[in-house]
Amino acid sequence: MLRTALLALLAAAQSAPPSPSRPATPSDIVAAAPAADWREVRAEDVLMVTLAGGREVAIELAGDFAPVHVANIRALARSPFWRGASVYRVQDNYVAQWGLRDGTPRPTLPRGVVAKPPAEYEKRVPRTALAPLGFPDPYASAAGYLHGFPANWDAASGAAALAHCYGTVGVGRGGPPDTGDGTELYAVIGHGPRHLDRNIAVVGRVVGGIEHLSSLPRGTEALGFYKEPAQDTAVQRVAIAADLPAARRPRFEVLRPESASFRRWLQARANRKDDFFIRPAGGVDLCNAQPPVRRAEPRRAEPLG
Amino acid sequence: MLRTALLALLAAAQSAPPSPSRPATPSDIVAAAPAADWREVRAEDVLMVTLAGGREVAIELAGDFAPVHVANIRALARSPFWRGASVYRVQDNYVAQWGLRDGTPRPTLPRGVVAKPPAEYEKRVPRTALAPLGFPDPYASAAGYLHGFPANWDAASGAAALAHCYGTVGVGRGGPPDTGDGTELYAVIGHGPRHLDRNIAVVGRVVGGIEHLSSLPRGTEALGFYKEPAQDTAVQRVAIAADLPAARRPRFEVLRPESASFRRWLQARANRKDDFFIRPAGGVDLCNAQPPVRRAEPRRAEPLG
Repeated sequence: MLRTALLALLAAAQSAPPSPSRPATPSDIVAAAPAADWREVRAEDVLMVTLAGGREVAIELAGDFAPVHVANIRALARSPFWRGASVYRVQDNYVAQWGLRDGTPRPTLPRGVVAKPPAEYEKRVPRTALAPLGFPDPYASAAGYLHGFPANWDAASGAAALAHCYGTVGVGRGGPPDTGDGTELYAVIGHGPRHLDRNIAVVGRVVGGIEHLSSLPRGTEALGFYKEPAQDTAVQRVAIAADLPAARRPRFEVLRPESASFRRWLQARANRKDDFFIRPAGGVDLCNAQPPVRRAEPRRAEPLG
Repeated sequence: MLRTALLALLAAAQSAPPSPSRPATPSDIVAAAPAADWREVRAEDVLMVTLAGGREVAIELAGDFAPVHVANIRALARSPFWRGASVYRVQDNYVAQWGLRDGTPRPTLPRGVVAKPPAEYEKRVPRTALAPLGFPDPYASAAGYLHGFPANWDAASGAAALAHCYGTVGVGRGGPPDTGDGTELYAVIGHGPRHLDRNIAVVGRVVGGIEHLSSLPRGTEALGFYKEPAQDTAVQRVAIAADLPAARRPRFEVLRPESASFRRWLQARANRKDDFFIRPAGGVDLCNAQPPVRRAEPRRAEPLG
């Protein structure tokens, strides 16, 4: 039937075992990756943003890349600062943004939050610090992965920057030299706006629940702001996963870009060839090759005493 | 205020006139483009898909690229075939797909619809047939524009293909050699899945109302299918714009990729430098440089007689 067209066929292909006539698909490779090729995201690095109706968005924080901004976000999550926050801007093919809407009383910054963080937009590292993508990037000298996140490296500055891909989370800011204090965050919900790379602090990426942001109604005002506060989606709770009870703490694992499985997966992504695909591209762009994420079972409660 | 952060500043920059200290932004260039640099989309090439609640999605059909598939889509739009159609699949960061859901009585194909169209996935043209993007493309030998649509050209086949970018519309199909008859269509609602290029028939792109598809709830079944028919979004009406009364006929204009304005716009997109941007990328990828579209006033009703 045509109505299950397009990817239904792919699903069938994925469920059949690879064979000489059916090469391993990207999904096959991920499913077969050994435990050592996965990295568990530390619970301290997972920001849980719960929207109205209990819709949970989980964000892996990139503390190795933007330590001051990420420390701010953790401190804010552990304070009452974000009480009353909402998603007040959803711009199609661009970003969903949340924080305290104009007119909401803005508390003083909690202790430990740096009001004017440094511009953690890029990081001087050798090119070899990145696990390479291996295909050309229109935005920089090279594309690859740094600290497990999609990133690029530019020869002009000798520095890497985390890339703006679908699900990337960054820190809203005003004009330079303002770098944003972490009280307003956005997530990319469209084609990767890579021109933002190196111009704003990237602090992580959504590893679960992006659909709760990407399917929100688009704001009708300029830049996707909602006209009325009543249109906002309330943020019910913000927490660091480490602070949740073990049984309720979500656990995420990310395929290591340095692993053999990941390299095979990249090649398979770049050369799709199965029952559905006829003409492999021979390449893939960075934002279509974000490290696969899987959810692990919550740990059972630790025995008392 | 930080809460109007990120792009609020850009908006301010766009409203200020360019000056030696503020170079022209992409928006400035589009606003200043002379009439000759715009092409009006023929009303015969606009497919109007109206979703429940009167939400209109307008699609420019690429009849110059995929003539048989597009002729099918026009013939279907002019028949009762799509009565009862719905959006039955919305997969996050991928596609929204509509047509007749499984279980809906499927009428015979209207007269004039080709049941098995040829594989209009690519088109043999010289590389010079494309207006060039001018930046590297990970998916093909070159990226650019063909018939006003984002496209790529590959040396191996000496052929161009329309590209899968945000808003691209294609024809669902089963496994090869099936090419799809145009009765099931999808629109891209995420990062451009360029690996589909050359593997499926691209028939156009959304030029208005993509947000009505991209903000739909995501389906929870495999590949984003909705579990229950009640979750579908009904397609109220499908029509070719030329068949609507002049006063209700939407008119769209697309900036010509061959024009001087477009070339300037591309350079400005690749080298963002204004009150907000600090570090221009020096490049842009194809799907972040889709030809700008604007809506023109409907024509006044023609005088009678």
